[in-house]
Amino acid sequence: MITINQHFLKLESSYLFSDIAARVNAFSDANPDRSVIKLGIGDVTEPLPRACIEALHSAVDEMAKTDGIRGYGPEQGYPFLREAIARFDYQAHGIEITPDEVFVSDGAKCDTGNFQELFTAKVKVAVPDPVYPVYVDTNVMAGRSGDPKQGRYAGLVYLECHAGNGYVPTIPQQSVDLVYLCSPNNPTGATASKEELAAWVEYAKANKALILFDAAYEAFIRDETLPHSIYEIEGAKEVAVEFRSFSKSAGFTGTRCAFTVVPEQCRAFDSKGNLHKLHALWNRRQATKFNGVAYPVQRAAEAVYSPEGVAQTRALTDAYMQNAVIVRERMTSIGYELAGGENSPYIWIKTNTDSWSFFDRLLNEAAVVVTPGSGFGSCGEGYIRISAFNSRSNVEEAMERVSEVLG
Amino acid sequence: MITINQHFLKLESSYLFSDIAARVNAFSDANPDRSVIKLGIGDVTEPLPRACIEALHSAVDEMAKTDGIRGYGPEQGYPFLREAIARFDYQAHGIEITPDEVFVSDGAKCDTGNFQELFTAKVKVAVPDPVYPVYVDTNVMAGRSGDPKQGRYAGLVYLECHAGNGYVPTIPQQSVDLVYLCSPNNPTGATASKEELAAWVEYAKANKALILFDAAYEAFIRDETLPHSIYEIEGAKEVAVEFRSFSKSAGFTGTRCAFTVVPEQCRAFDSKGNLHKLHALWNRRQATKFNGVAYPVQRAAEAVYSPEGVAQTRALTDAYMQNAVIVRERMTSIGYELAGGENSPYIWIKTNTDSWSFFDRLLNEAAVVVTPGSGFGSCGEGYIRISAFNSRSNVEEAMERVSEVLG
Repeated sequence: MITINQHFLKLESSYLFSDIAARVNAFSDANPDRSVIKLGIGDVTEPLPRACIEALHSAVDEMAKTDGIRGYGPEQGYPFLREAIARFDYQAHGIEITPDEVFVSDGAKCDTGNFQELFTAKVKVAVPDPVYPVYVDTNVMAGRSGDPKQGRYAGLVYLECHAGNGYVPTIPQQSVDLVYLCSPNNPTGATASKEELAAWVEYAKANKALILFDAAYEAFIRDETLPHSIYEIEGAKEVAVEFRSFSKSAGFTGTRCAFTVVPEQCRAFDSKGNLHKLHALWNRRQATKFNGVAYPVQRAAEAVYSPEGVAQTRALTDAYMQNAVIVRERMTSIGYELAGGENSPYIWIKTNTDSWSFFDRLLNEAAVVVTPGSGFGSCGEGYIRISAFNSRSNVEEAMERVSEVLG
Repeated sequence: MITINQHFLKLESSYLFSDIAARVNAFSDANPDRSVIKLGIGDVTEPLPRACIEALHSAVDEMAKTDGIRGYGPEQGYPFLREAIARFDYQAHGIEITPDEVFVSDGAKCDTGNFQELFTAKVKVAVPDPVYPVYVDTNVMAGRSGDPKQGRYAGLVYLECHAGNGYVPTIPQQSVDLVYLCSPNNPTGATASKEELAAWVEYAKANKALILFDAAYEAFIRDETLPHSIYEIEGAKEVAVEFRSFSKSAGFTGTRCAFTVVPEQCRAFDSKGNLHKLHALWNRRQATKFNGVAYPVQRAAEAVYSPEGVAQTRALTDAYMQNAVIVRERMTSIGYELAGGENSPYIWIKTNTDSWSFFDRLLNEAAVVVTPGSGFGSCGEGYIRISAFNSRSNVEEAMERVSEVLG
């Protein structure tokens, strides 16, 4: 009998974005004259950088020629892209990461979702709360949790993030094996300092744990004292895997390219305590279940590192960050406590009411869509997330409307 | 302690293509004047169809505009592509598949590799021998096998394919839960008839089993009596999932687009025997761990179904199939027994010696690279696979050389 993986049945359906869509549709139907401004989903709105467009066209032209067509590429990514990533994202900042330690993929969602396959179902998993749901759901599917109860799964360790710890997970008292960290954070926009990451690295060493460090939003860091990579911390290469993406830095959410860094010395253990290299295991996983990223897309990602690409992507993230400043300043001026928006495109706002009531009020009175924080976990209740991904004029207009309603 | 999934340690390293590469390099180093012709790996050599190139350029131009940029698309694929697939690949042939049953992905390798996640580790798995290694390795990683011994993993059921059954797996006496079938077959090039597939569908119903049907090579079928889809068989929708790809039909091995069909009525069971829809489970898996295919790539795949695209892709597969005819005829004329090459780009040739000796002889004496059949499983010993993916002139030259050596 073909029997299903019953862990799938534990998954609580995430109605967050479909709930939002249903309420927005109902509002629009009832108010056909009102223009709705969406600051909900963290999706880019600006075009791809010119350097990437040119690289795409050029690579497509290669694919049109007998002496240019590229078939199967290396599952780990083309050397030209792995070398550019290692050189510009790491070596140029004094971090010794080699091209061989970089695995190119079609998305940080896939990589953060798939990486847990390398571990036994028995490892103890810790996730932040609020959390990017992929970390949780993929571990539930793999059988690392019990049933859900009041928005949390039995067996997972939730690292509570709140104003008291600056929305950065506090080191737990108990021992866990696999820790998901995300900085700059989705959804809170908070960033971990070098000291905070160093404490996590120390914890991982002491507890023989592994850190999965999601740095998908590092391009938005503006404070020069903040770490862009966990490998800025001494000893992190042994205990941390890092995920990055071109989705937010270069507007690739619909173009699909990302990468994962697995240092040669990054280790895990078998049940007898013998050391194993995660690099070899992830390489085997990717070679077996993945067939590489489209050649033109890898050329587009390479173009992000050209002088033009660097300038154009910086201009892109600067534009979104200026939106973030507008949101921060306006919401602060009308009396709201908030986090994020300084080194992240997300602003996390304390609503002083429940998340959905606040959402409804902004939708119905200001025709502005945000994301209810409760959709990201228990600790998100009483917050909303505002995304800076939109045009300047839309963000300004949205803040005008919000101020009128709440101010 | 972060403990690895020890099933990974059971995996035998596949040295097949690296072994081939090493021998080819050694030959080239020793014979710098000899031009080597590669008929080994099944990778396309002709450029992308013009319709796809134009669609790619056009979509890239959209991504350059504020009112054209596409961010996150549906994880299941854009409706325009799902509709084209359902209409042209199924409905036009009298098969009722809806767009909602089509899941677009970046490769049949990923999909055939990932689909087993939906099932418990205890399901009994049957694979053909010789076999596309992804079916085996992904199940070993998931813990559905014991240790390997003499090229086979304990616990897996190997369906032996040989001249006696036309290289199409015979229905086993025992009950299995999950069956991988591939027609036209990689590596043998053999095709299953409607009667043979009907017997498998009947078996799946009787045994509450599921068939994973890999039809990645269906575009090469020329015999009009052969099924292109398992859904041509009455009742197959309940018991079969179908994988297809643009890799070989339209030369997308480096462009990356494929799809999986999971019919609404396709079922599996929980441990109590209750029915569950695989459609819902696969949808949840993809929504959680995948973020869709690049928008320009989906537009390129859509262009495969345009009148120009249909003509151009047909011309592509025709060209490769004419190569296959040349290989078949020449190898037959010099006295070799073979299969495939009539409805498939692969020709499976009985070597009358061990696979690697034959490989070495062709390499060293003819400077022609093929694939040793033993690399695909025990039943591949004594065979080689010749791929028709190359230019006409290279295939003709290769066959001249092979005839001189063997004739």
